[in-house]
Formats: sequence, structure tokens, C-alpha cells
Amino acid sequence: MITGENYIGFQKSSEGAITFKTFNPQLNIENDTVFSEANLKEINQAVCLATDAFRTFQNTSGTQKAKFLNAIADEILELGDELIETYCSETGLPEGRAKGERGRTIFQLRSFAELVKEGSWVEATIDTAIPDRQPLPKSDIRKMMVPIGPVVVFGASNFPLAYSTAGGDTAAALAAGCPVIVKSHPMHAGTGELVASAIIKAAKETGMPNGVFSNLNSSGIDVGVQLVKHPDVKAVGFTGSIKAGRALYDLASHRKEPIPVFAEMGSVNPVVILPNALKTKGNVLAKTYANSITLGTGQFCTNPGLLLGIKSEVLDDFIENLSEEIIKIEPSCMLHPNIIGSYETNKENLLNQDRLNVVSQYDADVNINYARQAIATASGSAFLENPAFHKEVFGPFSIIVQCENEEQLEQVISKLDGQLTGTLIADNDEASNYNKVISALQNRVGRIIFNGVPTGVEVCPSMVHGGPYPASTDSRFTAVGVNSIKRWVRPFSYQDWPNSLLPDELKNENPLDISRTVNNKLTKDKLN
Amino acid sequence: MITGENYIGFQKSSEGAITFKTFNPQLNIENDTVFSEANLKEINQAVCLATDAFRTFQNTSGTQKAKFLNAIADEILELGDELIETYCSETGLPEGRAKGERGRTIFQLRSFAELVKEGSWVEATIDTAIPDRQPLPKSDIRKMMVPIGPVVVFGASNFPLAYSTAGGDTAAALAAGCPVIVKSHPMHAGTGELVASAIIKAAKETGMPNGVFSNLNSSGIDVGVQLVKHPDVKAVGFTGSIKAGRALYDLASHRKEPIPVFAEMGSVNPVVILPNALKTKGNVLAKTYANSITLGTGQFCTNPGLLLGIKSEVLDDFIENLSEEIIKIEPSCMLHPNIIGSYETNKENLLNQDRLNVVSQYDADVNINYARQAIATASGSAFLENPAFHKEVFGPFSIIVQCENEEQLEQVISKLDGQLTGTLIADNDEASNYNKVISALQNRVGRIIFNGVPTGVEVCPSMVHGGPYPASTDSRFTAVGVNSIKRWVRPFSYQDWPNSLLPDELKNENPLDISRTVNNKLTKDKLN
Repeated sequence: MITGENYIGFQKSSEGAITFKTFNPQLNIENDTVFSEANLKEINQAVCLATDAFRTFQNTSGTQKAKFLNAIADEILELGDELIETYCSETGLPEGRAKGERGRTIFQLRSFAELVKEGSWVEATIDTAIPDRQPLPKSDIRKMMVPIGPVVVFGASNFPLAYSTAGGDTAAALAAGCPVIVKSHPMHAGTGELVASAIIKAAKETGMPNGVFSNLNSSGIDVGVQLVKHPDVKAVGFTGSIKAGRALYDLASHRKEPIPVFAEMGSVNPVVILPNALKTKGNVLAKTYANSITLGTGQFCTNPGLLLGIKSEVLDDFIENLSEEIIKIEPSCMLHPNIIGSYETNKENLLNQDRLNVVSQYDADVNINYARQAIATASGSAFLENPAFHKEVFGPFSIIVQCENEEQLEQVISKLDGQLTGTLIADNDEASNYNKVISALQNRVGRIIFNGVPTGVEVCPSMVHGGPYPASTDSRFTAVGVNSIKRWVRPFSYQDWPNSLLPDELKNENPLDISRTVNNKLTKDKLN
Repeated sequence: MITGENYIGFQKSSEGAITFKTFNPQLNIENDTVFSEANLKEINQAVCLATDAFRTFQNTSGTQKAKFLNAIADEILELGDELIETYCSETGLPEGRAKGERGRTIFQLRSFAELVKEGSWVEATIDTAIPDRQPLPKSDIRKMMVPIGPVVVFGASNFPLAYSTAGGDTAAALAAGCPVIVKSHPMHAGTGELVASAIIKAAKETGMPNGVFSNLNSSGIDVGVQLVKHPDVKAVGFTGSIKAGRALYDLASHRKEPIPVFAEMGSVNPVVILPNALKTKGNVLAKTYANSITLGTGQFCTNPGLLLGIKSEVLDDFIENLSEEIIKIEPSCMLHPNIIGSYETNKENLLNQDRLNVVSQYDADVNINYARQAIATASGSAFLENPAFHKEVFGPFSIIVQCENEEQLEQVISKLDGQLTGTLIADNDEASNYNKVISALQNRVGRIIFNGVPTGVEVCPSMVHGGPYPASTDSRFTAVGVNSIKRWVRPFSYQDWPNSLLPDELKNENPLDISRTVNNKLTKDKLN
């Protein structure tokens, strides 16, 4: 049952004066529950508990953490229909999407459970002593990854499960051994509370310390600001807009002790369409891209907001096809009146710019809070000259840029901001003639896709979900896949440390049977 | 021959109006060469060349990069006595130290050459396609580390070779495939120019692109500021003071596109001495620590500036012994009049604080620019109450903190700023009774040492040279060892990319024969 309260560790609490409700965009009404925003006292309590919890949680074994993570997955499933109904009532998204996203969330939690149970992820590295080395003896040095400390997680509006309360950031941080404080997203505070209740249950069941997880409600920016400024918070995970992500990054970098902020932010996900591909599969592409642009009402961070081609008749044909295909798609609901409000405003502002031409826009009547998809075109030079064309319009909207030639195409790509993804649509033989274009694209993105669509982010170790700024605040990390744990850990060395006092990961006898780099060789062998 | 000019890529250049000389602290005179500070035009040229060079250098094979790195090592050795003499004339350090540091520098370069020649460091990760997966097919996704872009390196005053022009930051960045622009340290500009000439020679010999390396002279902060603000610079490496490191971090985080700064900064390297250890080996310890405190005139970032013990007669005895031992050591020269000036000022300021007692200070006459070592004591409560006691005094100076009891010892440790190292001096049986003390120490440091001294940083894969702020700006990385390459690379994914267009590291046939994680299994096998 949703109560509207915060979780300050294991304790429910609602001491703050500020309250708010979530909104059902399909019905265009507020939902019933009154949520209590965490006040400063509650925020400080949550951080204090997290700091205390870290003392034991940082030394909790991989096996125990795996039990905790799996229990969270089990308890989320236990929530059953209430979770799905709450999700739908707070997002306007359909049930199938809710269930799919729950599946992804469960999969992520279990992947991290596998990772920490197996244990080799700590990158144990051992260099044994050489006592008789000249001119100086060599010490025994052993290194492994250790958790960085309490992590604050800001959930995304558009993924209330997979990138929110028990989403990738939280799962990775808990797997690392970092207590988590979630700044709950106000648009899905009910979904957040239900998932938080599952995490708290799981923590109690598996004997985790009080404070290993807290869930704080918030209607505005205050709770987040206080959390990021708190000296005992050691890292921040965020998914959302560039404006909000940058604000948190700035706050964190102005602290006396700056802390890492991994913010996954905006992206227009450029798609480069080469001429031969248009000739051979232009029609299919138009259908595929009409679907990708409107998928989830365009509310994906990997939504293709920019299609780049070289001026030609086939490109004209493709634009005509896409124009027809995109208005065949039934409009769908956006997450919140604020989000559709921003969509309409941003789209209008852009469409009012000189040298941008609307070529297709859904113009029949739609339900309230439903988004009208649109596509527009611009020349390569117009695009190069107007920075407004480079900005993300969050929703089902794309610009097709008609470049003069290959050189201009390369130039357009080089001038793009950093992106999560870049896509190349090409005939197999064609791509190798466009090395400079491909190379320019690679330098602007975190992931490059061949003859596909950017929407859809596979959860697997080889995935990079991140990229050069402003796709993320630090391109050296990924937000998806088990390697996203690296955001929340630091390497730590023991020099000449007694074997009995070393963590199991580094003991001579390798009791956890993990892979370790011993004197430059990867092995599971014991040391003599 | 030292000319005083900058290297703008392969070109020597001295267009700026500002000139300066280096200083010989042993002779207390300026050295002859007039150095030309790089002007804005030269700075922009260097960055522009680096950006151009990146286009080819980022795709240069590991074998080629290894040749380049080994050629740098060879060319540095070729410099012969001129390098050693210049080093000594610019630092006041003895020849043995110069040769030792050259050896370390060569070893680092060759270690990175080995690493990139072998090639597995890119963490190649492959998840193969599952076309018939339900409900959606799974794409083929392949990931590897790629270089981040041009890196600016700020050398350290106290390690003109190993942490400067061709030091660890530069070697790691070049190994990664990142062009490097060095902001040469004004105190050893001649050493820097010689090493730069070796790098340029090596680059030409091995066919590296013009702009892969530049060396810019500077007398003040302007050159560094312009470099860090330049939009085409993608990362910064720094070794030096907290003040300077933080200033660069702030500059970088205020950019439109913030970039990572890895700054290795100050540290007082706390040494915790447990009671039984004092009983059994107090005398030996006093000798050992007198040497460690004064090693290199205390000009090491791992110098033990803080000894922490629990009040007792044996601690009193140790303090007396250390007091006697430390003044037996012959004072030695500091790097520069400015550095000895800071040392004397910082020491005086501290010694004038209430509740700090000087227990030993070398007070015989010394040569000009030679430092007088000193030790002082303070109670645990005095230390807790006065933040001035927590600051590093760069030079041969340490404070011994006499804590009331174990609880206060733990409290003192918990209140410390982040540190590069922490040391525990204990009898083997004793340590296990001090879990809380050890745990507190671990949370404040990057490396923990048992019954040793913090001075001496072994170059090996298990080394962590870094730590919580302000030991470094980002505790998730190390400045020493081959893993320091991770500061300058980012993960990059290819989705459904044609095999022929993939980099060799990710091709089906594994032509480089590197270790790769294929469908969660580490293997060198080819893919079918």
C-alpha cells in the first residue's frame, strides 16, 4: 500500500511540511496519495544512517550482497499488479511497457547478483614481494576495488523502474557495497515508494544494516540539492535533462570535497543515412524510423532526433516516405502535462526558426496529453549556423539534415555535441568509402550502430550507455551493464599486509576462487 | 642542447614576449638558458596540432605505439650526462637520485610499451547476437577502450623525470592513443626541454603524426589556464599542490564541456603506531622514520607528515628517540628558494600555533636553500580542534599526535582529509585488536602499508597512487602503474558492426590474439 511517506532507512517518516500528488496523464487527474517531501532533518538522518551502514555494508561478502539483490528482485515481483497499476497511473504508459520495464529491472538486479557472487569483478591484482631485489627490496602489494561510500541516486522520469528507485544506478551501487539514498522522482513517487518497500523488505530479510537504503520524496529541487551538498555523500547517479544534470554536477564540483557525478543526460542520437542504402531500402527505412521516432512517445534518451543525409532525389523520396509513415502512427500519451508542455514549446520554438521546414506533422485531434509527432528538414549550412537545431526536443520529433556533400556531412557530425549513440545506415560495401564520416561519428558518441535503430539499450557487459558530454558528465563510464559498477568503486592497495588480515579476495589461499592477476598473469591459483 | 624554445609539435618556437630562467639551488644562482614562455598563438597551435594528430594517433596499433614508447626511453638514455647534469642543476638533488628517477621513467615507458604491445588492456568485450531471441532479437555488441582525446600534462616540481615531461601521466596518455601537451614546470624547464627533444625524436623515428606531443614553457599560471580552458583539450593530468590542482579542477569543471582532471595533490600520509610495536621495536622505528621523514629533503608526496600513537611511556620514549635520530641526519638542499621559503613559512606558522610543541629541530648552520628538519607533538584533542595541524608542510617535518586512547585515535583518523597512504606499525598479533582503527584508516587512504614506510611508490599493476580528495581529485583512478591508463580512455560500443570495419581488437578472428570477454567468458578464442 502506498502511504506517501519517506523511508529513512527502515523507518517510515513524514515530518516535512511540503506535500504533493502524482498525476495520471491518461485520465488528466491527480492521483489520490498525498506524498510528504523529506525535510532537512529527514535528509540528514538518511545520510547519517547510510554512513553508519557503510561501515558494515562495505565489508559484506559478495554472497550476502547477491542474496540482497536477488531478494529485491523477488520482492519487486511480489508487489504484483499494484506495481503495474501504479506505474501506469503515474506515467500514462501501457501495461506491456510497465511489465517489460519490470523485467529489465529484475534482470539488472540478478545480473549484479551474479557478478558479485562470482566475485572476480573486484579486479584483484597481486604483485608478490622480492625481498632480495637490488638496490631495494620489493614489497608485496595487493589491490582490489572497494566501494566509494554512500551514493545518491536521482531516478529518471521516463523509466520509473529500470532507471529509478531500484534501477541500474541503485543496483550497481548496492552491488559495489555502497548504501543508496534515492531522491524519488516526483512524477512516479508511488511507484518509487512501492519499489522502496521491496528494497527495505529485502534488506531486512537478508540482514543488511539499517540505512543501506533510503527513499526520499521530493516535489522540487531542494531535497536533491541538500543531498548532493552533504559532506558524507560520496557519489551521485542521475538520469535526466542536461539542465538538471549539469546543475548537480556544478553543485558537486563546488563542494569542499568534490565528488563524482555520473549524469546521463540529453542526446539527439544522430543517424547517418548513406546514399546507396537509401536506394536499396529507403521504403523499409522510412517505416522503421517512423516507429523508432515515435516509440514510447519519443520519450527515450536514445530516440533518433537527427537524421543526416546527402542531398539527392533518393533522400527526397525518403523524406516523403517518412512523412507519410510517421503520421500513420497513432499518437500516444506523454508522461506528464509538464512534459508534453515542454515538448510543444520546444517544438514550436524550433519550428519558428528560419530555415527549418516542417514536412510532416500529425494534425488530427488527439486526447489531452497525447503528443503530435512531427518531422522537419534543414540544410546542412542552416544546421551548422543555428545551434538551436542541435538541441534535443524530448518527444516524437526529428530533424532531417540535407547536407550538400560528404564534406559537409562530416562537418555537421564534427560540430555535434556529445551523444549516447550514432547510427550508420549503409550498404555493406558502401560504408568503407566513408571512413572520415564514420571516424567523426565515433568521436562524438558512446555507441555506434550499423543498420539499426538507436532505441533499445541491451543490458549486457559490452553495452556502453554514456558518451562525451553532454550525453554524460564523464564519458569514461557506462550507465548500463555490469561494468556500470565501476562508477561507484575505487582501487585500494595493501602493502605487506598480513595474510590473515587481508580481505578474502586477496588472501594467499584465494578462498573465493576468483580470477586474479598475480604477477601479471590472470589465474585462480593459490599463492604459496 | 637546451635552447629555451617550446616544441609546438615537431617545430621549435619562441614567439612569446615573456622569458624566464631556472635556478640552481645548490649554487644559489640562476642557470644560463633563457626560456621563452609559450604565447596564446603557440598554445592554440599546439592544441590544433594535437587535435589533428588524434585523428591518426587514436587508430595507431599497439605495436606502433610500443615502438614509440620504447624509442622515447632509448632517446632519453641517449641524452646521457647532459640530462643528469641539467636535472641536478635545476633541482639541487644529487646525481644518484637523478639516475634513479631516470631509471624509473624508462621503466614506466617500457611497461606501457609492453602493455599496449600485448593489447589485452583494451578490455575487449563481445556479446554475440541472438537473432531468434523472444520477444526481440539480440544484437551483436562489442566494446573496447578508446582514447579520450588530447591530454594536457602538468609536471611535478619534485619529480622532474618520473612525474613530468615523459613521466607516468604522459606515458599513460601516449599508450592510450592520446596526444599530449606538456605544460613544462618552470623549475626544471631545461630538463623538460631535453626530455621533450627525446620524445620528438622518437615520434619522428617511429612515424608518429606531428602534434602527438608538444612541450610548452611557462613561468606562471597563464599557459596552464589557457590549455585547460581550450575546448579541444579533453583531459588533464596534474601532480602538485592542492591549491594549484584544485584551481585546475575548478577551471575544467566550469567549461561548457567539463573534462576530467586527475590531480594528485597533497597528503600527510598518517602513520599509526600501536603500543606493542613501540615496545618491541621502538628504537629501530625511530631510526627508520628519521630517515623516511628526511628522505629527499621531505619532498615526497608520500612523506610521513603525521605519526599517530596512544599516550604512554613507550610513546614518550619513541618521541625522544626520534628527536635524537632526526637531528643526526645531515640537512639537504630543497628544490628552489620558493620551496624552502614555503617550507620555512608553513613550519613557522604551525609552530606558532597553541598546543603544538617542537620537540626537535636541527639548529646548526646550514647551507643556503638547505632545510632544517623538525618534529613537533600535539595532543589528540588539540589535533582534533585545530584544522591547521591537518595540513601538509612540504618538507622534512612531522607532527606526532599523542591520543588519549584508542577511541580518540580512531576519531583523529576519521577526521583526516583524504590521503595517498596510511601506515600501520604493529606487532602481528596486535593488529587484529584494532579493527576499527584500521577500518577508519582504510576509508581515508588509497594505499595502506603494514610495518613499513610510505615513502617509495613501487611501479606495478597492484599499486594505487591516489586516494580520497584532496589526495587526488578522483579516488577512482591511480597515477602509478599500468592501470593509470584508465584515466585517459573511455569505453566504446559497436552494435552489429561489420566484421571487416571493426578494429582488430574486436574482429571475429582475433588477429591480435588478445584476451577478450566473449559472452561472459575470458578467452583468446576466435569467433565462428
